[in-house]
Amino acid sequence: MGTPFSNLNEFRDILAQFSAIDTAAMDGAVARNAMLTKPGGALGRLEEIAIWYAGWRGNPRPALEKPQVIVFAGNHGVCAKGISAFPPEVTVQMVANFEHGGAAINQLSKAFGAEMSVVPLDLDTPTADFSEGPAMTEDEVIAALSAGWDAVNPDADLLVVGEMGIGNTTAAAAVAYALYGGEAEEWVGRGTGVDNSGLKRKTRVVEMGIRANPSTKEDALEALRCVGGRELAGMTGAIAAARYHRIPVILDGFICTASAAVLEVAAEGALDHCIAGHVSAEAAHPRLLKKLNKEPLLALCLRLGEGSGAALAIGVLKGAIACHSGMATFDEAGVSDG
Amino acid sequence: MGTPFSNLNEFRDILAQFSAIDTAAMDGAVARNAMLTKPGGALGRLEEIAIWYAGWRGNPRPALEKPQVIVFAGNHGVCAKGISAFPPEVTVQMVANFEHGGAAINQLSKAFGAEMSVVPLDLDTPTADFSEGPAMTEDEVIAALSAGWDAVNPDADLLVVGEMGIGNTTAAAAVAYALYGGEAEEWVGRGTGVDNSGLKRKTRVVEMGIRANPSTKEDALEALRCVGGRELAGMTGAIAAARYHRIPVILDGFICTASAAVLEVAAEGALDHCIAGHVSAEAAHPRLLKKLNKEPLLALCLRLGEGSGAALAIGVLKGAIACHSGMATFDEAGVSDG
Repeated sequence: MGTPFSNLNEFRDILAQFSAIDTAAMDGAVARNAMLTKPGGALGRLEEIAIWYAGWRGNPRPALEKPQVIVFAGNHGVCAKGISAFPPEVTVQMVANFEHGGAAINQLSKAFGAEMSVVPLDLDTPTADFSEGPAMTEDEVIAALSAGWDAVNPDADLLVVGEMGIGNTTAAAAVAYALYGGEAEEWVGRGTGVDNSGLKRKTRVVEMGIRANPSTKEDALEALRCVGGRELAGMTGAIAAARYHRIPVILDGFICTASAAVLEVAAEGALDHCIAGHVSAEAAHPRLLKKLNKEPLLALCLRLGEGSGAALAIGVLKGAIACHSGMATFDEAGVSDG
Repeated sequence: MGTPFSNLNEFRDILAQFSAIDTAAMDGAVARNAMLTKPGGALGRLEEIAIWYAGWRGNPRPALEKPQVIVFAGNHGVCAKGISAFPPEVTVQMVANFEHGGAAINQLSKAFGAEMSVVPLDLDTPTADFSEGPAMTEDEVIAALSAGWDAVNPDADLLVVGEMGIGNTTAAAAVAYALYGGEAEEWVGRGTGVDNSGLKRKTRVVEMGIRANPSTKEDALEALRCVGGRELAGMTGAIAAARYHRIPVILDGFICTASAAVLEVAAEGALDHCIAGHVSAEAAHPRLLKKLNKEPLLALCLRLGEGSGAALAIGVLKGAIACHSGMATFDEAGVSDG
């Protein structure tokens, strides 16, 4: 296929040209939904997400058969500032765990019939410490965006992206702060479990990062390049590729959502093909979802990353589509429509 | 197997003798959970429900392979009072729809690998109008409890019960009001969609029902008999049988939860083997779950019944158990435990 961009300006052009949902398919799904053997609206949000899915798949009675889960991994120079409860070598250890099928996301992918892969991104070369300057060069961020783009199977009918990268809640907080402003501390959380002094350190590092990278305040892709990370850019690229191929996406937790938000801030509507799988226990995730106007499907206090919350939500979407496409209509079943 | 009770006193005796969760298996599950390759607590409520499930299955590393879904159907004399938006013949029409595989619960059962059956309970003989006297005789309620008990497959490893019965949100409201008091209007909701005057009629009918059946205030099983219904009693009996066989249960919406609450009020702790699958859009469901101290897994504005919300939650529980029993430990994976 080949990645259709080789620099950030070409990537921006692609975002600007994204096409919208197929309203005819969506209208067809709305009409079908009204005929199914249930009181109107009785399946609540299941009806809404089935119709959304139908619109993006261009089919008023769609199937969900080939979900894809991709986990991106990266390492972060900013770990030198002591912002994580785990040492950076855990990233590569967990990648091996993903490859051997031992992590949570492996079990969830299997449980919901998703094809899963892991994409480690230059784990031996952490990004530069963003509190002192740009985390990545333009070539580096383009390489990560391209790896994300290329990892998407164009034949998939649903995409979940997740991440592993010690230090990446700090990078995600910096990205969100760059995109939406407010106070740095509003975007910083405990990640895998830092204590109060760790939390203060993270906040200070995020503030330093934005000061050290003034272009982040002007441009969403600059935010991704300067204070993001390779696995964040991998997710951004994959979510963009999904839109290009009209594959609906379920967003995972804070880091995934921050990576996605880059697209929405760069080009309004760029996340219309995404729903929020869950709201995580990471403190700033609800705030970020609100900025994106996304209501999460699940709220189960997960804070693992890896795409785990989104993978769990595959089950909800599967249930929604099974009902929408499999139920009998009032006519077919001979049921009186109250 | 044979139902081990033939009257309400024998049924009460069974409830009084329920055994508790297997704490050794639960402790084993807690220990295993602490060794899995994730930060402690990072799977949130998934960890909690996997440990709960392990305790009831008596296995610190359990599997979930044979979920069972049973839909009970009944008709209600109180429909004569104009308390539903749908005519009573819809109950039998929907039973045919269940039997032909066309309803929402058929699709959800299939999506989550559950064996599903429907148990119609004397649809040609509605219960008596409870606003004028007892809905059922003792023989009738015992027949329905027994049908529920016998419908449970002792080899199942998870149970979901659901219902279909035009008029049954009114019966469930009356049962909840009898069990917990307060004001009748706090327990009455719109069901499949009555308007404001319908809502007032339902409230008046519920008040009349409790006045006409004073024993309901004294005894939970009397509440089930006098203002409940056959499908409610079927669910009550099935949930009790599940406890007897140590099969964990996911509760569905308001009507299922009211039927379950009868057991908890009759014998405290009788619902320890149950979790709340979802909170429905029926107005009084959150209040009822609070009385039972059950936190719902899902909140997706469903208000269909049939067991649909609980069936959807099978996916969440499957995901939880897949992680718990399938993940590698830190030692197995060679991952540093922060």
